[in-house]
Amino acid sequence: MKLSDRVLQEEDIGKMRRTHYSSEINSDLHDNEAIIMGWVSSIRDHGNMQFVTITDRYGDIQVVAKRKECTEELFNQIQQLKEHASVAIRGKVKSQVKAPNGTEVIPLELRVFSMAKKTAPFMIQSKTSIGIDTRLNLRAVDLRRNFLKSIFRIRNTALKAAREFLSEHGFIEVNTPKMIATATEGGAALFPIFYYDREAFLAQSPQLYKEQLTMAFENVFEIGPIFRAEPSRTNRHLSEAISIDVEQAFVDYNDIMRLLEKMIIFTVDSIKETNKNELEYLNLQLPNLELPFPKYSYSNIVSKLHEAQEHIRWGDDLSPQIIKNLQNNRTDAFYFITDWPTSIKPFYVKTKGEKDEMMCESFDLMYGSLEISSGSTRINRKNDLLKRMKKQGLNVDAFDYHLRVFDYGVPPHAGFGLGLERLLMAITKCDNIRDVTLYPRDIDRLTP
Amino acid sequence: MKLSDRVLQEEDIGKMRRTHYSSEINSDLHDNEAIIMGWVSSIRDHGNMQFVTITDRYGDIQVVAKRKECTEELFNQIQQLKEHASVAIRGKVKSQVKAPNGTEVIPLELRVFSMAKKTAPFMIQSKTSIGIDTRLNLRAVDLRRNFLKSIFRIRNTALKAAREFLSEHGFIEVNTPKMIATATEGGAALFPIFYYDREAFLAQSPQLYKEQLTMAFENVFEIGPIFRAEPSRTNRHLSEAISIDVEQAFVDYNDIMRLLEKMIIFTVDSIKETNKNELEYLNLQLPNLELPFPKYSYSNIVSKLHEAQEHIRWGDDLSPQIIKNLQNNRTDAFYFITDWPTSIKPFYVKTKGEKDEMMCESFDLMYGSLEISSGSTRINRKNDLLKRMKKQGLNVDAFDYHLRVFDYGVPPHAGFGLGLERLLMAITKCDNIRDVTLYPRDIDRLTP
Repeated sequence: MKLSDRVLQEEDIGKMRRTHYSSEINSDLHDNEAIIMGWVSSIRDHGNMQFVTITDRYGDIQVVAKRKECTEELFNQIQQLKEHASVAIRGKVKSQVKAPNGTEVIPLELRVFSMAKKTAPFMIQSKTSIGIDTRLNLRAVDLRRNFLKSIFRIRNTALKAAREFLSEHGFIEVNTPKMIATATEGGAALFPIFYYDREAFLAQSPQLYKEQLTMAFENVFEIGPIFRAEPSRTNRHLSEAISIDVEQAFVDYNDIMRLLEKMIIFTVDSIKETNKNELEYLNLQLPNLELPFPKYSYSNIVSKLHEAQEHIRWGDDLSPQIIKNLQNNRTDAFYFITDWPTSIKPFYVKTKGEKDEMMCESFDLMYGSLEISSGSTRINRKNDLLKRMKKQGLNVDAFDYHLRVFDYGVPPHAGFGLGLERLLMAITKCDNIRDVTLYPRDIDRLTP
Repeated sequence: MKLSDRVLQEEDIGKMRRTHYSSEINSDLHDNEAIIMGWVSSIRDHGNMQFVTITDRYGDIQVVAKRKECTEELFNQIQQLKEHASVAIRGKVKSQVKAPNGTEVIPLELRVFSMAKKTAPFMIQSKTSIGIDTRLNLRAVDLRRNFLKSIFRIRNTALKAAREFLSEHGFIEVNTPKMIATATEGGAALFPIFYYDREAFLAQSPQLYKEQLTMAFENVFEIGPIFRAEPSRTNRHLSEAISIDVEQAFVDYNDIMRLLEKMIIFTVDSIKETNKNELEYLNLQLPNLELPFPKYSYSNIVSKLHEAQEHIRWGDDLSPQIIKNLQNNRTDAFYFITDWPTSIKPFYVKTKGEKDEMMCESFDLMYGSLEISSGSTRINRKNDLLKRMKKQGLNVDAFDYHLRVFDYGVPPHAGFGLGLERLLMAITKCDNIRDVTLYPRDIDRLTP
């Protein structure tokens, strides 16, 4: 067997374990041995010297192999490494002013767990990259780019912050079923399933369940998937998204707006504190948000649109495009649009009262022209709910399993649903929702 | 209008807000006014005195209305309250040694947000209750029982503890798609969906996705729904459950067992510390768990079964019943069964090596005869994976979207999936998995 044939032998990890992460390799370890593990993110071959960057989840380490200082076998092995190979290197740590972290590792042993068999169709080190579809087809490899790793570390912080905030405000976490018997908000955009011998649907929101749960728990939240059979191809819609759903008893939509804006600020501040490196890498400066967020009523927005000569009637929905035309000064700020027409909000949203049934106690949280969250005071009495369901042409019988609990004292309650990916778009300034989703789903994409 | 007609008038919450939770009403507030809100959990009518218990999410307060001390209208209103009504009471706090919490509230004003229209088919105050189906049909009302509220507060702690533990061990939280193109573990027990114009399935586990994500993030976890079209009717299976899924790079199943047992202990200890009241109410004494959990190899269990004259062949799966026959001394303890036959574990599970391909690096975490979690070292090289998939008769082409990332250096990795509801059964000693699930789904039940 030639020496070079032995190089590509892949080995199991066996009893070998990492002794240090990249972030732990510093000049204090000078002349000590360390075992590092990770993947090969770059190789520079200078003939008698090889520079190999090993990347683990905390960062990079430079490995420098000199022909004079290595065994021939080891130098040979290192020479044949490819980007993306999964490896362990046992080596000696050396202080080295010229190295990226002030230290480098001189290899003594290389173990290859899994060779790279192909060359990736995109550069790992670059922020901008090729078309998203090529990348999504090889998403797990794409995710090794620092750009995306930074985004998903920020996402992790956002999730932690939202949970911490809600928990400290007395909310308990619940999980409600994703396989349901009837459409929540009436018919549109549902994925049908075969449920044993019956037809069922994927939940487009935990709305009715979280409302019911205020009866026993008062304050509940759920963070989980929602499913919408969106027929459109846009950069802000997914077929499967993560929703932060919150519901609270004995309050109205004003209390909920105050809760939501505080949650947003807590989340943004947590990211600022936790993800300094990621923000620097992404070249992002997060704003200092102030309470309260500006509020504009729907009617006020419509008036402004009329002043701007836009064609819109009171009662029409506000498209992102029309808001963009209006909001050219506020493209990067959070604000609320409140008191929407009852007719374009779901049946469970409470109106502003008997004298004002055209408008409802509702809000959208916007970021520029992007809708981040929607919330409202809900109807808590059966008769009001029945009246509205009939008005919206829903089949009341199909909701019997829900309506029956309204015979047992459902408290006044209000809440919101927030699209986690939308919030991340706002925070990371990504234009395409697919970039902030690990494995996006849309009308064209079901894999990976 | 008669006085009694006005009683049942339901009102909106308007600007009225709760000033104190039940837990905040104490003798320090003697002679002060307070507004409490909640639902009526009991009423005792003593003619000239009414005792009404108002329950909020922190507990109960006794309201005492004396005919002599109330307006006629207020006394009348209170007399007509029904259990479950959702109400606010403004009243004066009085120290009262005989009252449950040493204080009671003398009402000055009652506001009814939502009357109870029916009498619930079960008693709110009792621990044992009628058949589970009657209760599930009215689940939101059933959940007002202290028994269930205690269980779901414990569940909330378990979720928080698991997340805290994993986060502190360097895991980041991910969410992977629930709508997928192919079966993870080969065909069985999947719910089909209509995905636009294609067939797709609900994910029975995030297995392949979490494995892929170790390439970029090394340590990942997901807590989310899994879907299994279980055809059986048992007390330990659900069609939709919450799985705590963990995957880690550069380790094997021994490391993962150590991680898992520490996570269980951290979770149980968190519950002991956080849920003292709930544990007392449920009359539960949680064990002091010690590291490491006992480990028995599959072969060892089979030998023991042979000694006990049970009919089993090496290679057969271990049914709960057969384990029950064996484990009569360990019905309430956690332990591992390790090194299972390769043939009864999924294709991605790594064997014990070339000399021992019959056995694999796998474990089940058991609690008595209940399987809580399953884990293993995974295969990280494409050829090994292809070999096993073909052996198990899987359509390799259908997994192309997964297999292709194995050309780019997938690290050695291992992990587990843990059924949250199963863990809660073990902790709360509930025999029926439906009791520890807010809205259970099974072959017979799709609502509420």
